[in-house]
Amino acid sequence: MTWEIAEGFQPTKKVDFGNKFLLANGYMGYRGTLEEDRQEDLVANTLLGLYDQVGDKWREPVNAPNALYFGITKPDLSLKSRQPSTHEQVLDVKHGLHRRVTAYDLGDNHITLTAERFLSMDQVHLLVQKIKITVTEAITLTFSVGIDGQVWDINGPHLEDFAYETAASRLLLSAVTQESKKSLAVGQEIYFPEMATQPSFELIQDEGVFMRQYRLLVTPAEPLVIEVFGATYNDNDLENPVIATQRGVTDAKARGFQALYEAHCKVWDELWEQADVVIEGDPEAQVALRYSIYHLLSIAPRHSDQVSIPARGLSGQTYKGAVFWDTEMFMLPFYMRTLPEVARNLLLYRVHTLPGALAKAASYGYEGAFYAWESQEGGFDATSDYNITDVFTKRIMRTYFKDKQIHISGDIAYAIWEYVKNTGDESLLFDGGAEVIFQCAAFYVSYGYYKPAKERYELIDVIGPDEYHERVYNNVYTNKIAKETLEIALGLWSVFEQDQPAFLRELLEKIGLAGQRDIWQDFATKLYVKTPDEKGVIEQFDGYFQLEDTSVASVRSRLLDDKEYWGGAYGVASDTQVIKQADVILLLQLFGEEYPLEVLQKNWEYYEPRTEHGSSLSACLYALVACRFGNQDWAYPYFMKTATVDLSGESKQYAGTIYIGGTHPAANGGAWMTAILGFAGLKEAAGQVSLTPHLPQNWQKLQFKTHYQGKNYQVSISQDQSEISEL
Amino acid sequence: MTWEIAEGFQPTKKVDFGNKFLLANGYMGYRGTLEEDRQEDLVANTLLGLYDQVGDKWREPVNAPNALYFGITKPDLSLKSRQPSTHEQVLDVKHGLHRRVTAYDLGDNHITLTAERFLSMDQVHLLVQKIKITVTEAITLTFSVGIDGQVWDINGPHLEDFAYETAASRLLLSAVTQESKKSLAVGQEIYFPEMATQPSFELIQDEGVFMRQYRLLVTPAEPLVIEVFGATYNDNDLENPVIATQRGVTDAKARGFQALYEAHCKVWDELWEQADVVIEGDPEAQVALRYSIYHLLSIAPRHSDQVSIPARGLSGQTYKGAVFWDTEMFMLPFYMRTLPEVARNLLLYRVHTLPGALAKAASYGYEGAFYAWESQEGGFDATSDYNITDVFTKRIMRTYFKDKQIHISGDIAYAIWEYVKNTGDESLLFDGGAEVIFQCAAFYVSYGYYKPAKERYELIDVIGPDEYHERVYNNVYTNKIAKETLEIALGLWSVFEQDQPAFLRELLEKIGLAGQRDIWQDFATKLYVKTPDEKGVIEQFDGYFQLEDTSVASVRSRLLDDKEYWGGAYGVASDTQVIKQADVILLLQLFGEEYPLEVLQKNWEYYEPRTEHGSSLSACLYALVACRFGNQDWAYPYFMKTATVDLSGESKQYAGTIYIGGTHPAANGGAWMTAILGFAGLKEAAGQVSLTPHLPQNWQKLQFKTHYQGKNYQVSISQDQSEISEL
Repeated sequence: MTWEIAEGFQPTKKVDFGNKFLLANGYMGYRGTLEEDRQEDLVANTLLGLYDQVGDKWREPVNAPNALYFGITKPDLSLKSRQPSTHEQVLDVKHGLHRRVTAYDLGDNHITLTAERFLSMDQVHLLVQKIKITVTEAITLTFSVGIDGQVWDINGPHLEDFAYETAASRLLLSAVTQESKKSLAVGQEIYFPEMATQPSFELIQDEGVFMRQYRLLVTPAEPLVIEVFGATYNDNDLENPVIATQRGVTDAKARGFQALYEAHCKVWDELWEQADVVIEGDPEAQVALRYSIYHLLSIAPRHSDQVSIPARGLSGQTYKGAVFWDTEMFMLPFYMRTLPEVARNLLLYRVHTLPGALAKAASYGYEGAFYAWESQEGGFDATSDYNITDVFTKRIMRTYFKDKQIHISGDIAYAIWEYVKNTGDESLLFDGGAEVIFQCAAFYVSYGYYKPAKERYELIDVIGPDEYHERVYNNVYTNKIAKETLEIALGLWSVFEQDQPAFLRELLEKIGLAGQRDIWQDFATKLYVKTPDEKGVIEQFDGYFQLEDTSVASVRSRLLDDKEYWGGAYGVASDTQVIKQADVILLLQLFGEEYPLEVLQKNWEYYEPRTEHGSSLSACLYALVACRFGNQDWAYPYFMKTATVDLSGESKQYAGTIYIGGTHPAANGGAWMTAILGFAGLKEAAGQVSLTPHLPQNWQKLQFKTHYQGKNYQVSISQDQSEISEL
Repeated sequence: MTWEIAEGFQPTKKVDFGNKFLLANGYMGYRGTLEEDRQEDLVANTLLGLYDQVGDKWREPVNAPNALYFGITKPDLSLKSRQPSTHEQVLDVKHGLHRRVTAYDLGDNHITLTAERFLSMDQVHLLVQKIKITVTEAITLTFSVGIDGQVWDINGPHLEDFAYETAASRLLLSAVTQESKKSLAVGQEIYFPEMATQPSFELIQDEGVFMRQYRLLVTPAEPLVIEVFGATYNDNDLENPVIATQRGVTDAKARGFQALYEAHCKVWDELWEQADVVIEGDPEAQVALRYSIYHLLSIAPRHSDQVSIPARGLSGQTYKGAVFWDTEMFMLPFYMRTLPEVARNLLLYRVHTLPGALAKAASYGYEGAFYAWESQEGGFDATSDYNITDVFTKRIMRTYFKDKQIHISGDIAYAIWEYVKNTGDESLLFDGGAEVIFQCAAFYVSYGYYKPAKERYELIDVIGPDEYHERVYNNVYTNKIAKETLEIALGLWSVFEQDQPAFLRELLEKIGLAGQRDIWQDFATKLYVKTPDEKGVIEQFDGYFQLEDTSVASVRSRLLDDKEYWGGAYGVASDTQVIKQADVILLLQLFGEEYPLEVLQKNWEYYEPRTEHGSSLSACLYALVACRFGNQDWAYPYFMKTATVDLSGESKQYAGTIYIGGTHPAANGGAWMTAILGFAGLKEAAGQVSLTPHLPQNWQKLQFKTHYQGKNYQVSISQDQSEISEL
């Protein structure tokens, strides 16, 4: 059963299961909590792209009222208060279906609750649920079904001005966000398919709670079956979310659970048809990789190019629901090879948020586009100047993620160009992609300084991917991605000059780049990018090799408090060579073909023991680069670490009292990349797809589809042969 | 009695009195402890320019064995163990004489101990002492006189391999420094002038202790009088310190106390003749200013151009006995106008330590001369990369005083040029001064970055005089002093080209500056120096005005621990506009003539409430600039604060468990500057000396001498008239 994840009754793992059993459909995410769960159980239906801020707390995505609340109150049949006789929570990743089956023994009466739910992949505003209760002895149950507007928030409450509207069995709860005053509506319809006459109910309405309470007799012969249809819309979607929600639930009820589920499954089947990866010989890897792909498919915003994927997917409000470089660098490689239209949406989000990036650059006195470290609506950078609290003084610490992590702009420019090259879809360039690339280039030129004595440009006082070392000079990854951005821009400049002179003229005029070409060329030529030293190792930044050379374990042993920050000015790692995550190794994954294989291996061997992997972005890069130099044995443990990050539940859930848990879509993308770009060694160049397979020893077969320049390919690799066929 | 400082018996103030009653003669300093005091009482005879390091502790100056130990052991007549009937400790600043008079009542016997001592200003290796004991009843006293080699050290012990040599009554103790293996000798002779036959003694010799023990009858008719002659030499002085010391004490004894004292006083009289400042109408200010001048005269290295004045003068080992910019910016203005040959010595120290500054620059990859923040022998920068300990974690904190406080080089170049202009002594330029200036200019050119978008050079990532704000960009003082350095260098270049082509050619060749002139000119022209904003205020560095604008009191109230550091990355002041010390105000003192007076006042009014004055360098600058715009009422409290810093004893003596006390010669210099350059408004330009007096209201008269371009002038200023006459 490589398509299902299941767990029994483990109340201490509730928070973890909220992530593990997450449902999503690209529009919203619904945490893997149980039907009777509420605010205190971290129930969340997180909406993508709708943000709100309360006071001076962090701005974060809004959780919609829970349209799928169901609780049996008399007798009290809740896992929160009663020990079950059996309990199972299941996620079917093939069709994005969540099922819980819980049985209670009330004396001789054996009562079984089965609840299934899905977020429709076909109609992304819909949440659909089916509940079934069977008994071995007749019993009258009092239960509530409805909308729970007392939502869990990290920095809320975000919703106010609740309005309640009911028509027959339809419930409609609407509210307004605190800061931005956006309207949000959640509706619910209900249907008892086994009953000739729909039962009557009492209405409960209290501070955002809007439910129907039923009191019904359930007998062994007549189990209780309920179909619940939820919907939600908000001002970001259309003008009148209340009316749309009303229609949404009414239409859904009319179609019924089964029809909706079939349409939903059809979408899933199509997605898996494109994206599934089959591993033979390693069931554990198969489950983990499919589970990773499930996440990538479920959170993909297929419906809109105005949003992108947050660092914690749609699993809640952690990381402010903000979009990081994770999306472009760790997820896009998957999407552009399986669902290029999703990749396009993700990149158009950066096009649409260019004004935010321009504004951010201008606020620091720079030209061009300085993309947000934590991008929210409009490209607004949600990052605080004080992102971390000192565990000793409880004071906030000045951090530089926002103002000095300048590689983000280059990551985006690089990603756009990768997309264009890979999909062949040049239209993105004309739909804003070229402008983004040019503005990112302009940013680096304005950020850079020229060092006359060394006749070179430098990028100084930055933070590279390894965030433990702040305010460093000439981080090699940062400088390389900036140089690459300039080269992409200059390349496009030449091509447009030839092929699209009018477009180019307009673009240059708009950005004000007349006369900049020589300056750009000079900057690109003279921008300093560190090269391997005599031992073949590339220094991560100026002076890195002079830092104390010690082990991760030694640095860890210096902690006075488990929760203290390793980086910053005085962190335990700051003045050592111990790094948080892949940095030079990221460089070597993206630009590996520019270095001899022994340089890749030398750097891997140098940086690997010095890397804490304090970020879930790290492990997959070590796996990928190990594959590049042909050592799949070194890669495999990193692959498994990456692929199981959301399955193992070993990632951190809390930092102090702040909930930081959630899913790790970048790691999911990293797992896919390792399988496809690493173990299979997929490469695209000059119109050709090629493979350099390094399968793990126990993998008998690896099969997948991939997209390249408008064509689909079927790939099949075994230990002794590999095959690519165009579809 | 405006020439004497006196205090009674206050045992809790012992450490403070050690500084307050300091004797010095430019070669060495002797703390104002009492004759019977020892190691635990912080006795120190600190030698200028002889350093040693023990293990990985801070390198610091060596304290010589105490050649003036005298203790009565039977009966135990020590202030450390017995309450006196009367006690007075006096410093005669006119002649650098320390006197203590202590009386004890032993039953009916009234015993009075008088001890006088001086460090010879005439023969700087000599320490001379006279002891007199009177009694009202005959008593036999057991006492010791000798050399106490169990010296107090902060980061010692520095002396080892003690050797003991005696010949008749002469004692000679020699030792070797731990790290540098330098020999050091201390000798002592003794003479009982009232005795026909010199009494015999028993020799005590034990781990650096080398003394004579006497047992003598003292009667009312025959008081005990002892003359003690100490001397010390070391390898820094000459080749055989032992022989020189033997001769030194033998010759001194031959001359006798009175003759030595007269020769000593003659030197003092000559110094005061040049340097005294008479204030009529304000006795408190008169005492404080004379006391300040006393310190400046007593610590002046008249004997050598190989040493300079440490930040805490010769009062001990604090601040590592290192030479800071204090000397050039806060003391030199006094010396060059009163004792130009001392000023020349101080600047030659920088010439001789140029190799250290070149090496420091090279170690960071820069050209030219990067002078030490804490300069020791050879210009070695004693600054640690970790200068401060975090009070919360007890971990050392990375500080940037050493690597980013780049204004020191400019301060030195500026001071050399000020000296040449002021004294007219151009020979310093040819004795290495020009090379220093050129190398400092070369350093800034290599440190600077060019910002193409803004068409300017910038000095980024520095610490200005205000050390609470680390790693700032374009600190206006730093950039201005760098620009000034370039302009001085370029000016000299032009002059030399005309007048000294051979010297110039040789210099440029030596430094390797061929073809650099245009680059220097470009750098000087385009180096960014911030200008007053629309309100007339100059921003201290990029982004300073965006920092939280709050009060010193508010910032102080945020301290969780009195001892925590205000600056660094996360200090209470770091992200506020509260500054440690004058920074823009220093700029306006040095370059005030380039700005309208209202700009001076506007900046004073802006920065004054935001300045903590956490450095003794700060107050005098506020006094000086207030005088510039004619507000002596604002200046006066800052003048008195500066002038009394070593009298009031209010400055910090300990930071945690580390002794940081000592005298404050920069403040002493600042007091003089305020009186002469501030209240008198002395200005020299174009061969002319002029005055713009702003005397404090109660000052009836201010009189002093000053030197300018080879001539001495007598200045006399009253409230309604002023007079300058050439002498």
